[in-house]
Amino acid sequence: MGGLFGVVTRDDCSQDLFFGTDYHSHLGTKRGGLAVKGSEGLKKFIHNIENALFKSKFEDDLSKLHGGMGIGVISDFDDQPLIIASHLGTYAIATVGKINNLEELASRASRKGVHFSEMSRGGVNPTELVATLINEGSTFTEGIQNAQQKIDGSCTLLLLTEDGLYAARDRLGRTPLVLGEKAGSRAATLETCAFPNLEYDTTQYLGPGEIVRVTEDGVEQKKSPEARMQICAFLWVYYGYPATSYEGINVEAVRNRCGAALARNDDAKIDIVAGIPDSGTGHAIGYATEARVPYRRPFVKYTPTWSRSFMPQDQSIRDLIAKMKLIPVRELVEGQRMLFAEDSIVRGTQLKDTIQRLFEAGAKEVHMRPACPPLLYSCKFLNFSQSRSELDLAARKAIHEIEGKADDFPVAYTNPDSEKHATMVERIRQRLKLTSLKYQRLPDLVMAIGLPKERLCTYCWDGTE
Amino acid sequence: MGGLFGVVTRDDCSQDLFFGTDYHSHLGTKRGGLAVKGSEGLKKFIHNIENALFKSKFEDDLSKLHGGMGIGVISDFDDQPLIIASHLGTYAIATVGKINNLEELASRASRKGVHFSEMSRGGVNPTELVATLINEGSTFTEGIQNAQQKIDGSCTLLLLTEDGLYAARDRLGRTPLVLGEKAGSRAATLETCAFPNLEYDTTQYLGPGEIVRVTEDGVEQKKSPEARMQICAFLWVYYGYPATSYEGINVEAVRNRCGAALARNDDAKIDIVAGIPDSGTGHAIGYATEARVPYRRPFVKYTPTWSRSFMPQDQSIRDLIAKMKLIPVRELVEGQRMLFAEDSIVRGTQLKDTIQRLFEAGAKEVHMRPACPPLLYSCKFLNFSQSRSELDLAARKAIHEIEGKADDFPVAYTNPDSEKHATMVERIRQRLKLTSLKYQRLPDLVMAIGLPKERLCTYCWDGTE
Amino acid sequence: MGGLFGVVTRDDCSQDLFFGTDYHSHLGTKRGGLAVKGSEGLKKFIHNIENALFKSKFEDDLSKLHGGMGIGVISDFDDQPLIIASHLGTYAIATVGKINNLEELASRASRKGVHFSEMSRGGVNPTELVATLINEGSTFTEGIQNAQQKIDGSCTLLLLTEDGLYAARDRLGRTPLVLGEKAGSRAATLETCAFPNLEYDTTQYLGPGEIVRVTEDGVEQKKSPEARMQICAFLWVYYGYPATSYEGINVEAVRNRCGAALARNDDAKIDIVAGIPDSGTGHAIGYATEARVPYRRPFVKYTPTWSRSFMPQDQSIRDLIAKMKLIPVRELVEGQRMLFAEDSIVRGTQLKDTIQRLFEAGAKEVHMRPACPPLLYSCKFLNFSQSRSELDLAARKAIHEIEGKADDFPVAYTNPDSEKHATMVERIRQRLKLTSLKYQRLPDLVMAIGLPKERLCTYCWDGTE
Amino acid sequence: MGGLFGVVTRDDCSQDLFFGTDYHSHLGTKRGGLAVKGSEGLKKFIHNIENALFKSKFEDDLSKLHGGMGIGVISDFDDQPLIIASHLGTYAIATVGKINNLEELASRASRKGVHFSEMSRGGVNPTELVATLINEGSTFTEGIQNAQQKIDGSCTLLLLTEDGLYAARDRLGRTPLVLGEKAGSRAATLETCAFPNLEYDTTQYLGPGEIVRVTEDGVEQKKSPEARMQICAFLWVYYGYPATSYEGINVEAVRNRCGAALARNDDAKIDIVAGIPDSGTGHAIGYATEARVPYRRPFVKYTPTWSRSFMPQDQSIRDLIAKMKLIPVRELVEGQRMLFAEDSIVRGTQLKDTIQRLFEAGAKEVHMRPACPPLLYSCKFLNFSQSRSELDLAARKAIHEIEGKADDFPVAYTNPDSEKHATMVERIRQRLKLTSLKYQRLPDLVMAIGLPKERLCTYCWDGTE
Repeated sequence: MGGLFGVVTRDDCSQDLFFGTDYHSHLGTKRGGLAVKGSEGLKKFIHNIENALFKSKFEDDLSKLHGGMGIGVISDFDDQPLIIASHLGTYAIATVGKINNLEELASRASRKGVHFSEMSRGGVNPTELVATLINEGSTFTEGIQNAQQKIDGSCTLLLLTEDGLYAARDRLGRTPLVLGEKAGSRAATLETCAFPNLEYDTTQYLGPGEIVRVTEDGVEQKKSPEARMQICAFLWVYYGYPATSYEGINVEAVRNRCGAALARNDDAKIDIVAGIPDSGTGHAIGYATEARVPYRRPFVKYTPTWSRSFMPQDQSIRDLIAKMKLIPVRELVEGQRMLFAEDSIVRGTQLKDTIQRLFEAGAKEVHMRPACPPLLYSCKFLNFSQSRSELDLAARKAIHEIEGKADDFPVAYTNPDSEKHATMVERIRQRLKLTSLKYQRLPDLVMAIGLPKERLCTYCWDGTE
Repeated sequence: MGGLFGVVTRDDCSQDLFFGTDYHSHLGTKRGGLAVKGSEGLKKFIHNIENALFKSKFEDDLSKLHGGMGIGVISDFDDQPLIIASHLGTYAIATVGKINNLEELASRASRKGVHFSEMSRGGVNPTELVATLINEGSTFTEGIQNAQQKIDGSCTLLLLTEDGLYAARDRLGRTPLVLGEKAGSRAATLETCAFPNLEYDTTQYLGPGEIVRVTEDGVEQKKSPEARMQICAFLWVYYGYPATSYEGINVEAVRNRCGAALARNDDAKIDIVAGIPDSGTGHAIGYATEARVPYRRPFVKYTPTWSRSFMPQDQSIRDLIAKMKLIPVRELVEGQRMLFAEDSIVRGTQLKDTIQRLFEAGAKEVHMRPACPPLLYSCKFLNFSQSRSELDLAARKAIHEIEGKADDFPVAYTNPDSEKHATMVERIRQRLKLTSLKYQRLPDLVMAIGLPKERLCTYCWDGTE
Repeated sequence: MGGLFGVVTRDDCSQDLFFGTDYHSHLGTKRGGLAVKGSEGLKKFIHNIENALFKSKFEDDLSKLHGGMGIGVISDFDDQPLIIASHLGTYAIATVGKINNLEELASRASRKGVHFSEMSRGGVNPTELVATLINEGSTFTEGIQNAQQKIDGSCTLLLLTEDGLYAARDRLGRTPLVLGEKAGSRAATLETCAFPNLEYDTTQYLGPGEIVRVTEDGVEQKKSPEARMQICAFLWVYYGYPATSYEGINVEAVRNRCGAALARNDDAKIDIVAGIPDSGTGHAIGYATEARVPYRRPFVKYTPTWSRSFMPQDQSIRDLIAKMKLIPVRELVEGQRMLFAEDSIVRGTQLKDTIQRLFEAGAKEVHMRPACPPLLYSCKFLNFSQSRSELDLAARKAIHEIEGKADDFPVAYTNPDSEKHATMVERIRQRLKLTSLKYQRLPDLVMAIGLPKERLCTYCWDGTE
Repeated sequence: MGGLFGVVTRDDCSQDLFFGTDYHSHLGTKRGGLAVKGSEGLKKFIHNIENALFKSKFEDDLSKLHGGMGIGVISDFDDQPLIIASHLGTYAIATVGKINNLEELASRASRKGVHFSEMSRGGVNPTELVATLINEGSTFTEGIQNAQQKIDGSCTLLLLTEDGLYAARDRLGRTPLVLGEKAGSRAATLETCAFPNLEYDTTQYLGPGEIVRVTEDGVEQKKSPEARMQICAFLWVYYGYPATSYEGINVEAVRNRCGAALARNDDAKIDIVAGIPDSGTGHAIGYATEARVPYRRPFVKYTPTWSRSFMPQDQSIRDLIAKMKLIPVRELVEGQRMLFAEDSIVRGTQLKDTIQRLFEAGAKEVHMRPACPPLLYSCKFLNFSQSRSELDLAARKAIHEIEGKADDFPVAYTNPDSEKHATMVERIRQRLKLTSLKYQRLPDLVMAIGLPKERLCTYCWDGTE
């Protein structure tokens, strides 16, 4: 997916920029980038963070990062931020989103004489493409609106310009963008978990398509928000950091409510509740509290040394790693009837191994309770993961087996009260060798979040666009 | 403190050695080291891990690490392992412990014509000193026993020799050493959390002073264990990883029992129970379950990018970091009566800030329940932390204020039922600005561990040697 | 200045590209870059070579460099090569030259909607600007011609395209470009010293403005050469490597002839002839042979460890370095009447110190014989050195002192037979504290090179454009 | 071989130490090391210099190197300097030499209880062994003498102690050690080329076995020189830097005289004289001057980027490199009768290729004149090169072919007037495909150096010990 952070300050933005960007590290694994505007103009620093922590890679740059304004980005794909010289002036740009019509837009621009030089593996760098769309405007605001209109997918962005920091949220608000303030400084962030320790107070959740210009003097609205919103519900379920809030709604609290909802609909006889760290923890705690069953940690994550994306070259070691991060605690597993609350089941491959390891360690029963309905559609709006093919989804595989075809399926599968749904869930349960499997119902998930369903994107579960 | 891991295998020990040693990363912050014995003899690799993860530093060495036997070490101080050529042959050595009479032993050796070349900042490298004591024997076993007898403090060690891997636990078993086995391989580890994912089964917890020689063919006992044991009780309370067991007793289970014991002696009216991650979590879960109060996570640790020991050079940033790892979740804090289970209170400095931040985030009450009694004595037997001065301990400071002197105090302070104890705790409570503060009683802690008190070292709490 | 090398081969171009580019290291000190076209498309690698050797920086890339075609560049300024996507396709580009109207061309392009993202310290990257001029054409050939016409200054370039390697020499041939061939491979080079060890035979010296397309199948002329040529005469005097030939004329041979010409016009009574290594060596050898005076090495360059551009941060050390590369050999200096042939005198600052050191080491007399006339004008056509200000030139300083003004001077100074010239030379001699100073005459230099004067650029000496 | 440099100064020795040691880079290719004694005691820095320049590796250490005294070493083998704690105190040690009885001395020490921890690939680190011999004395002087007596081979060394810098030359003076002085500082060096640019004046050439203690206050002789000297004559012929002097005799001057001696005994009809850079240059210049034949550079060394010991992993590239450093200048070769003065012919393998390339480039005749007699014995006293086997020597191969056996040969081969000698030289000439080959006579070489033959080691030519 990716993360964004921007600062405008009277003094020096480097520390806030460094830490504020770092607080988005859970959202991307490929590239980190920072750009600042100081007395010598714009400077940028981009590093590969696939095998190293953001902080260790950028520590050396910290002393060269001085300036009053800056933007930072964590990216799953291409180099960012870019520094662009154009008729609008020289500016830095960072984006989060997905551009489905990238090639079409790029060739349209090429025909007009525009070139692209920030080439990425797959061709044109999406952020450079966004810049060309912005450059088609006679002002930044006009240009950003042009980009919002032309892009099929989503795009939230930050620009560092001579006139201040431009922050623009995706047209349908699929990803969030939030403003904060402290004495002498203003910031824009995707994840609000970046704010408390940098002492920013949240001042405004930007609305869908809203564009603002942030300067030392204040925040100027350049375009008011659109009425329609389609914020991704999966942010609360899985992607967001527990300390973050979107639309004013905290992630950990939603997860606790998700777990509680699962418990209210459940009658499993169990000894302990657990989550697979880290993403299942909030859901599991909510379940345990509601069900009045002990919450336990039969799997411990070894955090001291696992960088998110450590990737040794040797394949045999990579296979080993798949299981190395979680250590089972045999003493807490043996003879237990265990219920695991999980955020979701994607392909289920690793989960299957994990369940197997629990039985090997002596578990008596293993019940699984995903905090959201079965995933049936791949996301078209955000770059959640490049490799996740729709047909690999556990639910789609089950349907494939039942129906004998993969690419189309009766809508009944999305109805939790239908026979078809029950058959599908039973197949998944059997494949994962679970004692029982019960998914969250969509209305319960929507209620746990607390926004009207029509303001949430629930496409991955029910196909509603 | 430090950690040790050793492997003997028919094939190639490199992967097990790499991961097994890495699983001790929570025990040391300065140096990591590996030695292997392959067809080209002994090779060693030592890296500074102060600003980088063990794995990222050693990844490049992995391809050069081949050999059937190896030892690894995580160290808080000096370079290790060392390769030593002597009349016993050429061997590699790694140690964990504390040598109080280091200088005396070193000058005794120098007078005999022995030199030291593995100089560390403070002079002689303790591990090289242990090697000279071993070299005084006519066999490894004799030499190790000589070291065990001469060292004032503690010493657990691994040797990689022509004749196999020697594993020797400290004379009084202050630190553990455990053997494990899988098809074709045997291993020795300080933390058993290194075993499950490498598929070793624990076969033997070495006794105090026990020495074994491990080869492909089996384990040969070279010296039987001593009767007396003084294993450090603080390993269960704080140092050990939750998935580890010492003397067959799991750390997380002990912590859950510690929390339960705290709850049984408590009558605080509270809304939620929480732990300060990571060390308070196990205790807090135990408390919440026993007290039937919801367990919540009002502080979230930002794990994706914090290497344990990231140390920027700029002091202003270092101050910033002190608070950056934990993110408060205002939504879960506001208006709550919160009880925090903590492992222990050492100086209380950071804790005071943390409590302050909770009140700033809107907490109504903050109750603190340390899982062990007040720390009154600095450890003499293990290198827990170089900088921890006895007089800086929160309890000693309180006594200093009450009694007007720092270096001596009435024994009554160790008695939880005494007036003096109550006065001391109240002073600490006031300094930390807590709603209430109640420490674990030592008998409850001992019972949570489950070993007879006389087999545990409880020196830091009651001064008993 | 900078260097260029390109290869087209049936197999893999990586080795030839690596070494061929490296053989241009004497022409640039800031950046090295390589681009290859392989099965995965275009890839580029750019490194800062200010504090490290080209080879050590690029060694690790060698294994990722595979492809049939490649271009390499040594640059004094910006990052190169660039990979550009445009309506002409995606191509890599590298350039050598100087664009005096860079800003004007860039703002013209910006107004048309083109953006620049390969920003360098001073703004637009000149190579990206050249690419925008090429993109204005409907074919590469048309585009290159457009660039040649629009650029005020000079530009020689290589393009790596889907259709092969385009090689285009500057419109007036200010810098050379030469084609070579061996079985299965063709190459383009700026310095022919790159050819013999890679076993290429020189097949064609491209003419001014000539454009060719090189493929596996052969060389196709896309534009025939222009009549007028203005190749830089200073290439033979100083910049070129001794093993290189331009227009078929070898550099070392020209230098030997320069020295011989100096000797024929000289009657100094001397004991030995020497050159200040490395640039004076060829001239000195020529002088010694002609004058039948022993050639000696009273200064030895310490080559084992001096990277061309080693730049420690500490200023006091940098001052030290200025003198460290050359070691005087007192035994060869003491009591000697020495004549030094030098390529040229630019500012004379270091030379003054060098002469001083010779007298300190016991030299009886020091005579200096520059191989070219006094430098009176800064180059407008090539980026010889960013910091060389015209008014800092030793000759201009002397004129400034004589005439009392710096920016204008009587043309007589360029006439070696004039009184003014003699006065100027005498002032320089006095400032440098030389026993005698005598410059080469321009006709002698032109004759040593062997081309008609009108085909050479001699602007820096006589101001002729 | 290796190099040594030491400084004692009132201020800070770091710069002099850094550059002084670097000026020995031509003498070793494996390790560089520095040790300083500052306010925090002894510190050392050791780096692998196989693929990088000394300066680039040590630049970062420069800021941590502060102290009044320091020693530096360039080593062909093991890590140096070592820091040793012993009954004599803690000191740093660096050595140059060869210990033929290393194993015997090491096992003798082991039996006494001494251990070795600075293990190198082949076992005990020779410098640690020397330290144990020094530690056997009750004072440093006594200990050094003990080492000088016990070592079979040679050993020149520097010690950095509490009492100042100890400098001790090999018992027979096989390698030199020279003292220098400037205001406030004293230095010891192996190569005097390190002195002029650091502004030291040579004050004393230490005699064989001489030991001095250098402090801020002066130089104290601890042991007077021995009468017998056996300084290596090959230092002047090949190893030494041209700007260096041994026993007061300059290397370049010796080489010029060697070349002149060759010319006086020669009647070859030639057009030009040349040397294969860099080692043949001094000899060639001497020949050309004496013979009044033009000196030319038909081979140019590409110095800008060749680090002495660049070693790519790919074997095919390594083969390529063998020929890449020297670029032939066809224009200077074609049709010429060329005479090459060379320092010596060792195996002749590369030389054969070089000659072949000259003929391919059009040479009419190639005559070779080595500046010393045929090498017939491998050095037993210095580590000139690990891989040079006696039987690989070009002269021994020729004898092997003539006599049919390799390990023994008639002494007549060392007599340049014998038939056998002539046959041997003719065979070598044929193998190398030379037009003519004529070696220097030993008396001429001795006269060029200027010391009595009995004070020179000429073992490699005539077997005299």
